Amino acid sequence: MKFTCQRENLLNGINIVSKAVSGRTTLPILECILLTVSKEGFKLTANNLELGIETAFIDADVEETGIIAIEAKIFSEIIRRINGESVSIETDEKNMTLISSGFSQFKIAGQDGEDFPMLPIVEKNNEYVLFQNDLRNMIRQTIFSIAQDESKPVLTGELIELSNNSINMVSVDGYRISYKKSNLISGNDNIEVIVPGKTLNEISKILSNEGEDKVSLYVTDKHILFDLGKSIVVSRLIEGEYIKYRQSFTEDFKTKIIVSRSELISSLERACLISRDSKKIPVKLEIGGNRIIINSNAELGTAHEEIEIDCDGDGLKIAFNPRYLIEALKVIEEDKVAIQFTASLSPCIIKPLDGDEYKYLILPLRM
Amino acid sequence: MKFTCQRENLLNGINIVSKAVSGRTTLPILECILLTVSKEGFKLTANNLELGIETAFIDADVEETGIIAIEAKIFSEIIRRINGESVSIETDEKNMTLISSGFSQFKIAGQDGEDFPMLPIVEKNNEYVLFQNDLRNMIRQTIFSIAQDESKPVLTGELIELSNNSINMVSVDGYRISYKKSNLISGNDNIEVIVPGKTLNEISKILSNEGEDKVSLYVTDKHILFDLGKSIVVSRLIEGEYIKYRQSFTEDFKTKIIVSRSELISSLERACLISRDSKKIPVKLEIGGNRIIINSNAELGTAHEEIEIDCDGDGLKIAFNPRYLIEALKVIEEDKVAIQFTASLSPCIIKPLDGDEYKYLILPLRM
Repeated sequence: MKFTCQRENLLNGINIVSKAVSGRTTLPILECILLTVSKEGFKLTANNLELGIETAFIDADVEETGIIAIEAKIFSEIIRRINGESVSIETDEKNMTLISSGFSQFKIAGQDGEDFPMLPIVEKNNEYVLFQNDLRNMIRQTIFSIAQDESKPVLTGELIELSNNSINMVSVDGYRISYKKSNLISGNDNIEVIVPGKTLNEISKILSNEGEDKVSLYVTDKHILFDLGKSIVVSRLIEGEYIKYRQSFTEDFKTKIIVSRSELISSLERACLISRDSKKIPVKLEIGGNRIIINSNAELGTAHEEIEIDCDGDGLKIAFNPRYLIEALKVIEEDKVAIQFTASLSPCIIKPLDGDEYKYLILPLRM
Repeated sequence: MKFTCQRENLLNGINIVSKAVSGRTTLPILECILLTVSKEGFKLTANNLELGIETAFIDADVEETGIIAIEAKIFSEIIRRINGESVSIETDEKNMTLISSGFSQFKIAGQDGEDFPMLPIVEKNNEYVLFQNDLRNMIRQTIFSIAQDESKPVLTGELIELSNNSINMVSVDGYRISYKKSNLISGNDNIEVIVPGKTLNEISKILSNEGEDKVSLYVTDKHILFDLGKSIVVSRLIEGEYIKYRQSFTEDFKTKIIVSRSELISSLERACLISRDSKKIPVKLEIGGNRIIINSNAELGTAHEEIEIDCDGDGLKIAFNPRYLIEALKVIEEDKVAIQFTASLSPCIIKPLDGDEYKYLILPLRM
């Protein structure tokens, strides 16, 4: 293999596929990036067997085609640090790889590209299209409430419900449910899949936030493929049946308050300060008379906060894990939120004041 | 005790004295900040028994004088997070402390202020005055080469040589020597002290970088006091005799090069990339013909760099720990540096191109 390309193009590609490189594994080739050079230019692939990312072909001045697997960390560091505008890469029959740029030359041992695991093939039968920015926001507004422990594997992923005009994403960890709906630009049959949380975390880092960029989703029994145009992401799906969440979001409530999201976050964060193990102590909310009084009590002392609100319905006392409230409040964009309560031991529902594309349900703590 | 003050003033004071608060110790009161309220206002003190910091009195609206010790971490978090413009603090006879601001109230258990260790008394006989900004730069340019291990305690501090018109600071870790000289605004007898590295690190964080602010130094047998005007810092001194360093800085050299500091740093950093354990592998320098060739060799491969230089004298080959070169090059302000060599196994000396207020000596490695 021998080719020359723009350093910036190579670095951009490395930054994208790096999200799918394994940390230390028993299979060292998974710590590599596969570099494929053909007449069309070069492309980069990473694959940790759960998640794979591949760039489209990128322009290069190719003298000799070939493939090589190069340890991702050093490859990325070298390309980031060299200061020439262009980079030349050349390999010999023993996979020794020479990287040259400006007055710098590196010689590193590569691995045989043929040993690199292929990405799974996903047939592109049913296409669902949406804006990348919408998908990014959906992930951001739901990813934090996936389950952290592996006891119920389906809950370590998110449910994605696809139809011909909309997409819903749902996460549940046993204490709370995040739900977000967005429009599809085009869709197909109704279908549900469970996508690993790690995949969603990584893909959200490479999704564009420019209004016009689109992403196409394709689904098979075992895999989901996200086509971002400049790159594709392929992930395995989580098998199993997701829990029924719809009936939990009842519109049957006794108290509804409207409160400033930023004020409520600040007060809750301050109320947590009196615990060394911040955000784990319960906070008690006393709602009524157009204000919330927040109290917390821990080994270091007590905190007392008051916030003015609009309150419709009965007063009530209720306790929460403050982290569960704060995390949801932080991902809502509007400053005013509506919170609906039924009773001290019944779940409450948080929404932005307008619209119901985002909904969050949280179980209270017993006082 | 009962008083009200501006939140910002209290927070600034906490940020300054926090540098002298102990981490977890067997003496919990050392994790506190002492709050002293008198008719003059309030002042804050922290003391970890090696280093103590105290603010001057700060304006407050005092209803009742008194002293209290409050756990530094929670005190600082509360004052940082509350959003009122003013803060009121009130204690009862059991040291229970009520902090109120805006719609927030915290009640935390304080400790008896009488149990807080007094700062050592330093008599202000001999005063040495310099600009705070100069002291800050002196610390920055020398602190990185104090010894990290405790086998020779004097080397864990810096030698400070004071005279009637200048101040020198020196650090030595057995492989290299950093030396920096500055002018004093006023001085006194010749005197030498060894100040702990930790003290210098902490004080450099609170020294002003505004041109006109001055600091006065006072020294006794056991202690040094830095009077910054708005606060004082008192540190114990390290006892013992510092090593004789002057004769090491010889002007007897065979090769002198002039090189761009930024280019040399970048090349050395790139040469380190081929080691997983970055900056620990030796780099080999081949000097001659108006260029340096840098080579390094590690488990991952080899790196080769070239830099154009001005070279006066014989060519030579020499090897270094790259970190020792990079750290000194990073603290020099001028872009051009002069490096003087005698032989492959003799120390080399790095200086800015103009002036000799800063000098750095480094021992080479055997190739």
